[in-house]
Amino acid sequence: MRILVVNPNTTASMTATIEDSAARVANTDTEIVAVTSSMGPVSIEGYYDEAFAVPGLLMEIAKGETAGADAAIIACFDDTGLDAARALAHIPVIGICEAALAATAFIAQRFTIVTTMERSRLPLEHLVHRYGMAGRCKVRAADIPVLSLEDPNSNARDRLRSEIATALRDDDKAEAIVLGCAGMADLTAELRAEFGVPVVDGVAAAVKQAEALVALGLSTAKRGAYASPLSKPYKGLLEAFEPRKIAAS
Amino acid sequence: MRILVVNPNTTASMTATIEDSAARVANTDTEIVAVTSSMGPVSIEGYYDEAFAVPGLLMEIAKGETAGADAAIIACFDDTGLDAARALAHIPVIGICEAALAATAFIAQRFTIVTTMERSRLPLEHLVHRYGMAGRCKVRAADIPVLSLEDPNSNARDRLRSEIATALRDDDKAEAIVLGCAGMADLTAELRAEFGVPVVDGVAAAVKQAEALVALGLSTAKRGAYASPLSKPYKGLLEAFEPRKIAAS
Amino acid sequence: MRILVVNPNTTASMTATIEDSAARVANTDTEIVAVTSSMGPVSIEGYYDEAFAVPGLLMEIAKGETAGADAAIIACFDDTGLDAARALAHIPVIGICEAALAATAFIAQRFTIVTTMERSRLPLEHLVHRYGMAGRCKVRAADIPVLSLEDPNSNARDRLRSEIATALRDDDKAEAIVLGCAGMADLTAELRAEFGVPVVDGVAAAVKQAEALVALGLSTAKRGAYASPLSKPYKGLLEAFEPRKIAAS
Amino acid sequence: MRILVVNPNTTASMTATIEDSAARVANTDTEIVAVTSSMGPVSIEGYYDEAFAVPGLLMEIAKGETAGADAAIIACFDDTGLDAARALAHIPVIGICEAALAATAFIAQRFTIVTTMERSRLPLEHLVHRYGMAGRCKVRAADIPVLSLEDPNSNARDRLRSEIATALRDDDKAEAIVLGCAGMADLTAELRAEFGVPVVDGVAAAVKQAEALVALGLSTAKRGAYASPLSKPYKGLLEAFEPRKIAAS
Amino acid sequence: MRILVVNPNTTASMTATIEDSAARVANTDTEIVAVTSSMGPVSIEGYYDEAFAVPGLLMEIAKGETAGADAAIIACFDDTGLDAARALAHIPVIGICEAALAATAFIAQRFTIVTTMERSRLPLEHLVHRYGMAGRCKVRAADIPVLSLEDPNSNARDRLRSEIATALRDDDKAEAIVLGCAGMADLTAELRAEFGVPVVDGVAAAVKQAEALVALGLSTAKRGAYASPLSKPYKGLLEAFEPRKIAAS
Amino acid sequence: MRILVVNPNTTASMTATIEDSAARVANTDTEIVAVTSSMGPVSIEGYYDEAFAVPGLLMEIAKGETAGADAAIIACFDDTGLDAARALAHIPVIGICEAALAATAFIAQRFTIVTTMERSRLPLEHLVHRYGMAGRCKVRAADIPVLSLEDPNSNARDRLRSEIATALRDDDKAEAIVLGCAGMADLTAELRAEFGVPVVDGVAAAVKQAEALVALGLSTAKRGAYASPLSKPYKGLLEAFEPRKIAAS
Repeated sequence: MRILVVNPNTTASMTATIEDSAARVANTDTEIVAVTSSMGPVSIEGYYDEAFAVPGLLMEIAKGETAGADAAIIACFDDTGLDAARALAHIPVIGICEAALAATAFIAQRFTIVTTMERSRLPLEHLVHRYGMAGRCKVRAADIPVLSLEDPNSNARDRLRSEIATALRDDDKAEAIVLGCAGMADLTAELRAEFGVPVVDGVAAAVKQAEALVALGLSTAKRGAYASPLSKPYKGLLEAFEPRKIAAS
Repeated sequence: MRILVVNPNTTASMTATIEDSAARVANTDTEIVAVTSSMGPVSIEGYYDEAFAVPGLLMEIAKGETAGADAAIIACFDDTGLDAARALAHIPVIGICEAALAATAFIAQRFTIVTTMERSRLPLEHLVHRYGMAGRCKVRAADIPVLSLEDPNSNARDRLRSEIATALRDDDKAEAIVLGCAGMADLTAELRAEFGVPVVDGVAAAVKQAEALVALGLSTAKRGAYASPLSKPYKGLLEAFEPRKIAAS
Repeated sequence: MRILVVNPNTTASMTATIEDSAARVANTDTEIVAVTSSMGPVSIEGYYDEAFAVPGLLMEIAKGETAGADAAIIACFDDTGLDAARALAHIPVIGICEAALAATAFIAQRFTIVTTMERSRLPLEHLVHRYGMAGRCKVRAADIPVLSLEDPNSNARDRLRSEIATALRDDDKAEAIVLGCAGMADLTAELRAEFGVPVVDGVAAAVKQAEALVALGLSTAKRGAYASPLSKPYKGLLEAFEPRKIAAS
Repeated sequence: MRILVVNPNTTASMTATIEDSAARVANTDTEIVAVTSSMGPVSIEGYYDEAFAVPGLLMEIAKGETAGADAAIIACFDDTGLDAARALAHIPVIGICEAALAATAFIAQRFTIVTTMERSRLPLEHLVHRYGMAGRCKVRAADIPVLSLEDPNSNARDRLRSEIATALRDDDKAEAIVLGCAGMADLTAELRAEFGVPVVDGVAAAVKQAEALVALGLSTAKRGAYASPLSKPYKGLLEAFEPRKIAAS
Repeated sequence: MRILVVNPNTTASMTATIEDSAARVANTDTEIVAVTSSMGPVSIEGYYDEAFAVPGLLMEIAKGETAGADAAIIACFDDTGLDAARALAHIPVIGICEAALAATAFIAQRFTIVTTMERSRLPLEHLVHRYGMAGRCKVRAADIPVLSLEDPNSNARDRLRSEIATALRDDDKAEAIVLGCAGMADLTAELRAEFGVPVVDGVAAAVKQAEALVALGLSTAKRGAYASPLSKPYKGLLEAFEPRKIAAS
Repeated sequence: MRILVVNPNTTASMTATIEDSAARVANTDTEIVAVTSSMGPVSIEGYYDEAFAVPGLLMEIAKGETAGADAAIIACFDDTGLDAARALAHIPVIGICEAALAATAFIAQRFTIVTTMERSRLPLEHLVHRYGMAGRCKVRAADIPVLSLEDPNSNARDRLRSEIATALRDDDKAEAIVLGCAGMADLTAELRAEFGVPVVDGVAAAVKQAEALVALGLSTAKRGAYASPLSKPYKGLLEAFEPRKIAAS
């Protein structure tokens, strides 16, 4: 099967990290197709960046579905544009936050997401609530810009470690840690070794959920909030971006 | 004071309805500036349409703030793009759903939103939950396309009436009705007369909330999830849309 | 329009503070009528004081409505007697706690109420829950008697400042502060300047909500819990207090 | 031990029904002292009546405690004035709604309160929520005035039966029934026989809870919201009612 | 009346402590029959121990009901096997955790359970949630093995005291303390004296609830989740344990 | 990898249905080992049956882990004994209810479980709540005994179909259906075809979740509620059942 993994920010080096993480856990007969969105901000830090990442993301999903993908993954921990993507596509679409939380819920009663910037903490708390994990899952921000994770000279990884240590020691009483940014995927193995608790990467978790849904023959229900978009005119420059037209062309 | 009212769909005739409703309740020293988004779908029915309405909406808000607006209103009942707009702007930004619910909560313990399409029902239920009204407020869909509200030959208004009657009679035990679409604003007076209960239009409610916040000297807190967006590169065609660049030019 | 503002404790100097705050934000064509309850405790600190403040409060509301008020405000942060007042009156009735929370919810995702006495903290937590703000809004008590706010020799204002500083720094991660007592209304401006975050006074917020509801043509729904009281005999001394008789006489 | 049972409405015949129900289940060494409030409405139907029943109720509790009662029961299903009474008294104070719900929770997972008037339904729903029974307990109103329960010519009892039948058959899937008015206490036995399910009367339940707390040596915690009222001036006619002065005199 | 108190662990010395606590508060005409389960772990610390304590517990309940008990108490703070016991028996069955929480809810708004082992904390949090006390009741573990409570040379009682002191001082702002293990029952009086707040023992609380339900003529509703078990074959060794067969023999 | 699938009831023919469903979706390199519990009731219908199914279930899990299983599945929709099994085992343990709900949550916003007996409805509602799906997922009982699903002459399948049709049509507004009993697994394909909506079988879903967790290198966190059971004496006949001893022998 073919799984499309869309990095909704426009930084190709982060896509490489994501692709590595996805490929490492994929079944042997799964083809991972990782793409970088061609439009939007270079990193997604808060609501504003999210808004401008969505059109480019949807375009990649429309193109990927037309090209034969069996499932799609949105590889930003904000699950950017997830609802719109599910309305657009017929294949299943998975967010890496929801996949990470679903996997962790099978192995721990209390856990903590450690994310990058304070401005992403509340959006993630909303997701935690939406996914039914409020009361089980706290969110902490290590106060590190997303792209600093790729900079070997930054102290980003030290701050991440420090915040994990706090989550294990303090009131969270975390039994497991969820990495709250796609750009942390390459750190999973070493953090598990260092802290001796389950550490969950959403990219890898999403690949396994995508494979699972395809194997189960399940795709997005189309009779409620995810009914296919109605055909209607688009005005202005955005007309040029309408994914269904692009995908069809 | 000047209040910007953005219709985030691209149908100018609906903007006229919205402007009328806004002007009717505005203080005498309030200037209502109603604008139609220049980009995006002609109506917003579900998650997909929302996603494509946001960039055009944010552009209007950036332009309006630069031009001196004291507050902004997003005149779609999905509160489309509200979080991103609050992160972008320094002036207060109000959604018509949240304004309608806040007003109704002062006058009734149980109430019902009657909206247009089934596919908008669940997004509105999420808003009801987020705004703390779960348990007090039900959502019903009259199963009418948004633009049919403007078509005198459609049965849209009859279906709306029928759904209101059900909400007053059935398990909702609604004490008041909230009109769940900006395009219903012109019906407020006649529905109040017909049903003898409070009927709340979000556009009018939002105008009064905007006036209130400005008079109170309050604007969006900038130290949490609504911190101003970080300056960063945009790639691809969306670069051309970055509202802060456009507003500044 | 005329807005009745009832101070439900019997301390006239506090009514003056309340009236100042109300007048400062009222529209030019709004008449503020501030009255002190003629019966009950000199300050409201906890459930017991609340209970004895209600009959005098209801009497003022009945008299005010008969005299032509368009809306009424209950100027105690416990929203003392709010439900009974709504059942009694036909004009809209607003509590200053609910008004403050509604205004703050438009500008911040997380905020903290700083109130006076520990014994008022749990009653306010119940209000926060009832108004749908649990999870967004914490309550802190500065441990200061209500009337000490009027005593220049007390350290009440220092303790208030200290508690605000804690709310901004600690786990609350408050983005805005709500002043949890009508007697704090005169401190709003200086606290905003000092802390650089939105500081919300419930008296002012309630005036704008009252103006809004009147302008919108909305009043309390009368088909549910707020149906007008049934006419029935009163026995004993309380018979003399029945507001509807007094207002009618 | 001596248990004070206060009927907070001023109808002595209802006190007789209450006293019978209380005496029937009391331990042999328990003295039931049932009193009728001397001030206030003849029945309590909704928020307004509640407000005017509280001062008279508190006065009886203060007098009863001074006279040596070991526990007090508030015999109105709205648990009228319960928080204020707990702050006032040092002996335990029990509401009949909370007692009924606590007893029923030991024997059923889903149950339904059947009360009198629609205007009491929402206040009871708030109690159900506060007592942690939301999701387990529905509230239905049989649409019968409280005092009609005492009128053999009314159809009150038929309507009550009809509403119970609905609760057992419909979506409630009620496993047990709670009688939602002190005036229904005398019907408990016959309704149990008729419907073959547990039927719970709050007056009887409260007597047993009061006995339990006294036997356990437990009384209201005085370090939080129920701290004893501060001594302070009362102004106006209510000064004459201050329970602590009356009890002390 | 006769009340069966089952200690579901197999340590007879703990049963003696339980019996003492039960006898101390029972009515003079109540016979306490305390039994030790004949099968299972010597102490119940966590989910695994619970699972193996249930069959022996159910057997004692079946035997006790056959022998004429009017109510049964499960004297482990995890309320081990409570739902299965309610389905099995026709007499009321009470867990000591639910009884303790119900009693405490009548006298305090905020309270804290102090239990033994960290591994029991989350199971108790689930019970707190199920019994509708989330938001009112915290759970703390003193990190002491259950059986160390019986060892005069252990520091168990000191650790318990220390955790209570923290609950009264810290964020819990506990107004009362609930002892989270049947083996703590003998400490109730001295802890009350030491800390000056209500301290609640679940064994004693359950005795009074059992007496209450019997006096009220109430037993488990049999039309929902607690319908009597269907008669069906048991296979393997467990066949020998089927309580209904044993009780009947 | 090897996945142990335990049927915790003692009916071998149902194990065959379960094994078929598991094998159909397993990866080619996954070995499914389906076992029937050797002790306990022939079907699990309610709390009592659950209690007696747990020891036999835990014994199979202990044996399977010792024999080299990489993950274990509990193939009863009540997720019987799940917490105890997670405390016992070091390999991941999955319940079929939680697996079904997790899968469905990726493809639908609202869905309905259709289970067998009314007495199982409330236990499943508790699971739905625990897994964070309250508000998204209803539970309906088709009123069919578990074993009737295997009887071609029963009307069980017709009743199941009828209840699904109701869930799709009525207030649930279900977008997808979850089959609420392991014994329904063989009906998945035909029900999907008949109703045209996603139909989810928990057995198949659990196999994919088990494969996912193993591939992700994740297993149960052992620092909280799932810490390994402490070594301690077992008394009476249950001593003979202690899984860890049996597995070790």
